[in-house]
Amino acid sequence: MSKWVLNFGPDGAEGRSEMRELLGGKGANLAEMCNLGLPVPPGFTITTEVCTYYYANDRTYPAELKIQVETALKLLSERTGKGFGDVSDPLLVSVRSGARASMPGMMDTVLNLGLNDETVAGLAKLSGNERFAWDSYRRFITMYSNVVLEVGHEHFEELLDIAKEENGYESDAEMTADDLRTLVDQYKDLVRSKTGNPFPLAPEAQLWGAIGAVFASWMNQRAITYRRLNSIPSEWGTAVNVQAMVFGNMGDSSATGVAFTRNPSTGENLLYGEFLINAQGEDVVAGIRTPQPLTAASRKSGGKPSMEEAMPAAFAEFVAVTKRLEGHYRDMQDIEFTIERDKLFMLQTRSGKRTAKAALKIAVDMANEGLITKEEAIGRVDPLSLDQLLHPTIDPKAPRQAIATGLPASPGAASGEAVFTADDAERVAHEGRPVILIRVETSPEDIHGMHAAKGILTARGGMTSHAAVVARGMGRPCVSGAGGLKIDMTAEKLTAGGTTIARGEWITIDGSTGQVFKGRVQMVEPELSGDFAILMEWADAKRALKVRANAETPLDAKTARGFGAEGIGLCRTEHMFFDATRILAVRQMIVAETLEGRQSALAKLLPMQRADFVELFTIMRGLPVTIRLLDPPLHEFLPKSDEEMNEVAEAAGVTAARLRARVHELHEFNPMLGHRGCRLGITFPEIYEMQARAIFEAAAAVAKETGETVTPEVMIPLVALKRELDMLKEKIEQVHAAVSKETGVEVPYLIGTMIELPRAALRAAEIAESADFFSFGTNDLTQTTFGISRDDSARFLSEYQRLGLIEQDPFVSLDISGVGELVEIAAERGRKTKPKLKLGICGEHGGDPASIRFCAETGLDYVSCSPYRVPIARLAAAQAALLPGKDRREDR
Amino acid sequence: MSKWVLNFGPDGAEGRSEMRELLGGKGANLAEMCNLGLPVPPGFTITTEVCTYYYANDRTYPAELKIQVETALKLLSERTGKGFGDVSDPLLVSVRSGARASMPGMMDTVLNLGLNDETVAGLAKLSGNERFAWDSYRRFITMYSNVVLEVGHEHFEELLDIAKEENGYESDAEMTADDLRTLVDQYKDLVRSKTGNPFPLAPEAQLWGAIGAVFASWMNQRAITYRRLNSIPSEWGTAVNVQAMVFGNMGDSSATGVAFTRNPSTGENLLYGEFLINAQGEDVVAGIRTPQPLTAASRKSGGKPSMEEAMPAAFAEFVAVTKRLEGHYRDMQDIEFTIERDKLFMLQTRSGKRTAKAALKIAVDMANEGLITKEEAIGRVDPLSLDQLLHPTIDPKAPRQAIATGLPASPGAASGEAVFTADDAERVAHEGRPVILIRVETSPEDIHGMHAAKGILTARGGMTSHAAVVARGMGRPCVSGAGGLKIDMTAEKLTAGGTTIARGEWITIDGSTGQVFKGRVQMVEPELSGDFAILMEWADAKRALKVRANAETPLDAKTARGFGAEGIGLCRTEHMFFDATRILAVRQMIVAETLEGRQSALAKLLPMQRADFVELFTIMRGLPVTIRLLDPPLHEFLPKSDEEMNEVAEAAGVTAARLRARVHELHEFNPMLGHRGCRLGITFPEIYEMQARAIFEAAAAVAKETGETVTPEVMIPLVALKRELDMLKEKIEQVHAAVSKETGVEVPYLIGTMIELPRAALRAAEIAESADFFSFGTNDLTQTTFGISRDDSARFLSEYQRLGLIEQDPFVSLDISGVGELVEIAAERGRKTKPKLKLGICGEHGGDPASIRFCAETGLDYVSCSPYRVPIARLAAAQAALLPGKDRREDR
Repeated sequence: MSKWVLNFGPDGAEGRSEMRELLGGKGANLAEMCNLGLPVPPGFTITTEVCTYYYANDRTYPAELKIQVETALKLLSERTGKGFGDVSDPLLVSVRSGARASMPGMMDTVLNLGLNDETVAGLAKLSGNERFAWDSYRRFITMYSNVVLEVGHEHFEELLDIAKEENGYESDAEMTADDLRTLVDQYKDLVRSKTGNPFPLAPEAQLWGAIGAVFASWMNQRAITYRRLNSIPSEWGTAVNVQAMVFGNMGDSSATGVAFTRNPSTGENLLYGEFLINAQGEDVVAGIRTPQPLTAASRKSGGKPSMEEAMPAAFAEFVAVTKRLEGHYRDMQDIEFTIERDKLFMLQTRSGKRTAKAALKIAVDMANEGLITKEEAIGRVDPLSLDQLLHPTIDPKAPRQAIATGLPASPGAASGEAVFTADDAERVAHEGRPVILIRVETSPEDIHGMHAAKGILTARGGMTSHAAVVARGMGRPCVSGAGGLKIDMTAEKLTAGGTTIARGEWITIDGSTGQVFKGRVQMVEPELSGDFAILMEWADAKRALKVRANAETPLDAKTARGFGAEGIGLCRTEHMFFDATRILAVRQMIVAETLEGRQSALAKLLPMQRADFVELFTIMRGLPVTIRLLDPPLHEFLPKSDEEMNEVAEAAGVTAARLRARVHELHEFNPMLGHRGCRLGITFPEIYEMQARAIFEAAAAVAKETGETVTPEVMIPLVALKRELDMLKEKIEQVHAAVSKETGVEVPYLIGTMIELPRAALRAAEIAESADFFSFGTNDLTQTTFGISRDDSARFLSEYQRLGLIEQDPFVSLDISGVGELVEIAAERGRKTKPKLKLGICGEHGGDPASIRFCAETGLDYVSCSPYRVPIARLAAAQAALLPGKDRREDR
Repeated sequence: MSKWVLNFGPDGAEGRSEMRELLGGKGANLAEMCNLGLPVPPGFTITTEVCTYYYANDRTYPAELKIQVETALKLLSERTGKGFGDVSDPLLVSVRSGARASMPGMMDTVLNLGLNDETVAGLAKLSGNERFAWDSYRRFITMYSNVVLEVGHEHFEELLDIAKEENGYESDAEMTADDLRTLVDQYKDLVRSKTGNPFPLAPEAQLWGAIGAVFASWMNQRAITYRRLNSIPSEWGTAVNVQAMVFGNMGDSSATGVAFTRNPSTGENLLYGEFLINAQGEDVVAGIRTPQPLTAASRKSGGKPSMEEAMPAAFAEFVAVTKRLEGHYRDMQDIEFTIERDKLFMLQTRSGKRTAKAALKIAVDMANEGLITKEEAIGRVDPLSLDQLLHPTIDPKAPRQAIATGLPASPGAASGEAVFTADDAERVAHEGRPVILIRVETSPEDIHGMHAAKGILTARGGMTSHAAVVARGMGRPCVSGAGGLKIDMTAEKLTAGGTTIARGEWITIDGSTGQVFKGRVQMVEPELSGDFAILMEWADAKRALKVRANAETPLDAKTARGFGAEGIGLCRTEHMFFDATRILAVRQMIVAETLEGRQSALAKLLPMQRADFVELFTIMRGLPVTIRLLDPPLHEFLPKSDEEMNEVAEAAGVTAARLRARVHELHEFNPMLGHRGCRLGITFPEIYEMQARAIFEAAAAVAKETGETVTPEVMIPLVALKRELDMLKEKIEQVHAAVSKETGVEVPYLIGTMIELPRAALRAAEIAESADFFSFGTNDLTQTTFGISRDDSARFLSEYQRLGLIEQDPFVSLDISGVGELVEIAAERGRKTKPKLKLGICGEHGGDPASIRFCAETGLDYVSCSPYRVPIARLAAAQAALLPGKDRREDR
């Protein structure tokens, strides 16, 4: 016979913490506390298997369940000395759901189950407080009706309000026991009229009703949606916990409280929490009374006494219990407890949520204390949370109201004057005032304004739109694709949620949450503690995967190196041309109709490009630098405004009309799939030749200057055919030979390719013949594998997430089962041809922990990410190295 | 010891026709003719293995080659009774290259090798014609110097011209033997001064020089490019044929000629060809003298006598030989022959090139004659050539000059007045005058003009641009992406190659070659002979692959059915809305900002759509019809001109300014990767619901009306995730249930998906769980796998082809090693989940023979193509079924 019900009590439990799958998180922890001999009110857990059975069998229970529950109730009676429905000493229970993972949206709790017109008298007698008993009964009916019978609690509130009004009361506390008794009658009438049935008075009926409600709530819409969004299989099911009630509201020797074994905000190793004397859990939540601190040390001057002072014996016991629990679970615990007439009862323990800062400190402290290993410490910090430590954040205590929410495109918060053009941003910033640059969408000509701004806000674009990518690269906070925003570029104002912000008015954005606020919101500045450096050091010792940065400006490169980058994995040469004087020459090159026209522009660009590389190579000396040759989707670089047209026409020595015609000719319907990447290099070989020359000349100069060898890794973008790579490789090698001869320096170098098209991934075996390395450009690979343009995806991807069609934006976290398979195919086929083939990833995914784990499992050599993501990647890489491998191929 | 040299002669040969790989095409056929006992001048072939050895060993010959050539020369002396360098009876030879496949760009021929200052006298004596001998010698020096010594023949021409001038001669024929002797001296001086060495006089030296030149020419740039373009491996190598000279210019009993065993233009089973008395092959080519016909029947009145009349004995022998050869090779032969003093010599035979019409007739005739099997007949006709039979073509005899060349986007030729707008096209066509619609590029609003036009010409766009796809669907000739064209839309004129064509002037386009002509060029109307129907019938009996058509209009559907389509494989519902009144409602739907707005537009569209389907289902009764739900890349449908904006604004009941803002909002950077396909269906479910309703209501109506069952196959486009399909499938099933209830007709149906994104191909196993069929949308799959937009690709793909980076436009012929692998993966994974999963292809590739072969090999159930491609697909499918499988996976 299957065991559907497991008991727990102070004398031990049938379950234990490892039985989370069967008992749910709550039930497993209650059992574990019992096994530790801690004072836990006894009870039993109906397992998740019952839930599974229930749904597999048309919402019926296993035949043996009834008798097992009855047996468990009998044991519970024995353990408590109380009887279910016993008028003189009634057993009251709480009923709670409890899934493997915490699941909002499901039925939460019914307290005081077992009360009825008769047992309420017993409770009155036992507690010596009739009003307490009737108030408990009233609350039980409300709660039960609400969650089990689906009668909204607002109906009950209404009756309570009427009663108070009729009696001329101001607060609930004025309601007498008799008033409450009358109210209970009204409540029962209400239930009958709403449901057509009387309120169940038999405790067993109440219990089965509550059990049924828990199981039914597993399949309610909110729970289904939550599971879909969080990839929780519906097969997991929920358990039901039935536990004897204890009362923190049985007078001044009773209390209830919550505690963290360490400070969840700072991580300090000090008991943290609060309690209320003569109260139940919901009173703490209601916030009517001010809770008191737990420890004497945390008592505020003039504040109420702490638990340590008010209940020294219970406190001492409690402290011992918390130490026991933290030691046992080897993690900071979030604990709920009740003291009933001086006796301590533990109601819940679980790992406590904490801030990034606290997580870091707790992990390092615990490792230093010997409580956990360094490996465990590494695993205890969510890599993504490090972002909070690297950027200013909104002060959690600051008053604020979001007027719009977009995508959290680049982390950190920033305030400044609203400006609507890049030029304005530069001008105002030059005057020493912080600005937020607001655009419908950004383009390369906004770069100088983005540099000048403290933060960037766009109405359009996804997580990997131009604004997002550039902002992350620069470490500027950015909110992108804030669709609720109406931007009037002519009037220079934005409207959102009825609020208008005009040019010059203050605005605040939070790039970590995507929120936009009117005015200036208080910030908290980042503080890189010693714990950070310590944990990073531990992480670095464990990881095999190298971490490089995507960087092209000296500032980015320095930032990246400062954050521990082990080289540059992606230097986007076209990004080196955003400066106003340079973009002119780039545009001139792009619109040139003749070889001579292009060569004239290239002659201007060569010295600039060479100087850039000299600076970059000097900063990154001793580390590898991967340089991607020009890869501009043309539209990003074409002149648009009349002014730009005139400027470029003049520089190119053609009429504006001629230039306009040329720009029209170059227009592309789908520039992302257009004449870009190596296609430019093939059709206009002189462009890549100039770039190769700039790279090798710079490397030679730095080598001469410093005596140190620099190894540029020249990367060809958008290769679909081995022949493309072959043709360009040959030209680059020719340039290398020429530069070697001219400078007398034989610069070592590699030539490799981006794998960013499905075809390249599929043909990796032959492409590898000609490549020294592959770098997976997972942004483009995601675009092409999904057929989704990152710049146009915000419109429907957010809807897809809302509908639960996708869990994660595939531009943020690599689509492992789709795009990932192409990466695996390419890695496998490439390495089969060339076992030593160097493999890396340089898409935005290089900074995403789940994607990094995938990269580690796929055997890549390195990831490359935005400079500010480098610490995240280092930690995530270490975690990946420490985790057991997971067979992702199972479903293929 | 390897055998590097194989001899052939009238008493038999060491080679045979199957040894093409070793001997090259020419050598193998010469050997074969010898084995047949035909009169072939003896000689020997140096094998392709020598070429391979030569390049593998730093351009040196195998050690044994010299002795083997000497031995072969000795045998040749014995066979001819002449001696190499023998002054009294010199052996003269021709040296020719001969690869496995005919290869322009390689060294062709050196004639009369063996002549020098001494042997020339022997030739004079033997021929009794001193002038002939010296002229042969002069020609030999020119030819040898040109191809072996790389001294341009223009230098020799110059000396000849000077000599004629000095002597006051008008023509070469006036040069006397003495004049030629003097000229030969000058020639030798020229060679010495140009090369620094004397002209080689020793016949052996001449021979080795020529052999070396043949091998060297295998690696010259033209040959390399040609091989790259035609996928000929460089490992194949070339053979060298050395053959005793025979002379057709030894007087009036000598002659030379070429013949086809059947008429290569019409296919008639009549000997066809021409000859010249007292001439060498080059005289026929030079065109100075008018050749004479071979047969008496083909002698023109007043023309010179035929070979049949002039040389009856030789003719009789020749006819017997041609019959023998055709019977032996079982194909129409292209033959070169020489008669030396009444003796017939066969110099070459090979399968003759022929027109499509001839190919068809010859194949059917030969099968009927019992010469070949029906299967062989099917294999003898190039499916693509059928296009020539279905469309009017430029009269090959018509005088014309191309002013520009674009892509051959839709076959057939057409002439008409040049018009530059769709409205104009419609108006002029309405007046009964043919027009050619000229646009920079076309869009859906040009459809009525494209319908009205005889042909379409665009300056932009590739083989699968809007213009190309629509034109093919309509069967209108189209030249697209004619980059050399400058179109001035304001002045309504085009300029190309210095020629201007204004509105109203005549223009001719040839969609089969991509050429554009000024004025009206003479056409040949198509003539579907009985042979066509016979061959199609044979083909249909052999193929397993079904052939459907891509069609949505009744006209298309009727055309398709007429051409033998076995259903509709792709009905693009958005194409049903090109009509001016409809596109308004479609636009209204697309720009609607609210559900109500969309519903109002959808209410207008429902009856139109339903009526379309009623008509379509009626035409296609008894056959399957696959309907793709709406899949418009938005930009194709957004209103553009002010007029359109106003029109749509009025229909939608909003201000033009509001609409403009909305259109701006809907703008996409890369619409091909944007909010289209099932993404529209997901975000605006009411659109697909309307379409499903229209489909099922129409099917129910037709079923009621006709009593015949119609099975619509509802196809969801652009699926990347199984969940997308699931969600939409559920909605369609709901509509089906509702319509069944309302109409009382339970329409049978399938729901399937396009596989047109790499992700869908990779996830085919799970997607197949929810799909009744997969249809490979290889246009989009090519776009995404390659990362190339079909609308933007013309600019660089043509350059790629020129550079030999790609052999075929991947939008025309499926990229089997890249895109093809995804098709294979999807087919394999899909069928693993669901063995009976119906698989088809509905991209443009469905009409391409190579792609069709791939589809057959991959086990697809059907291909679907433009109506006019249906016959091509039927034939190609039959050929695929008859060919042995080829392991395309070998290189993975």
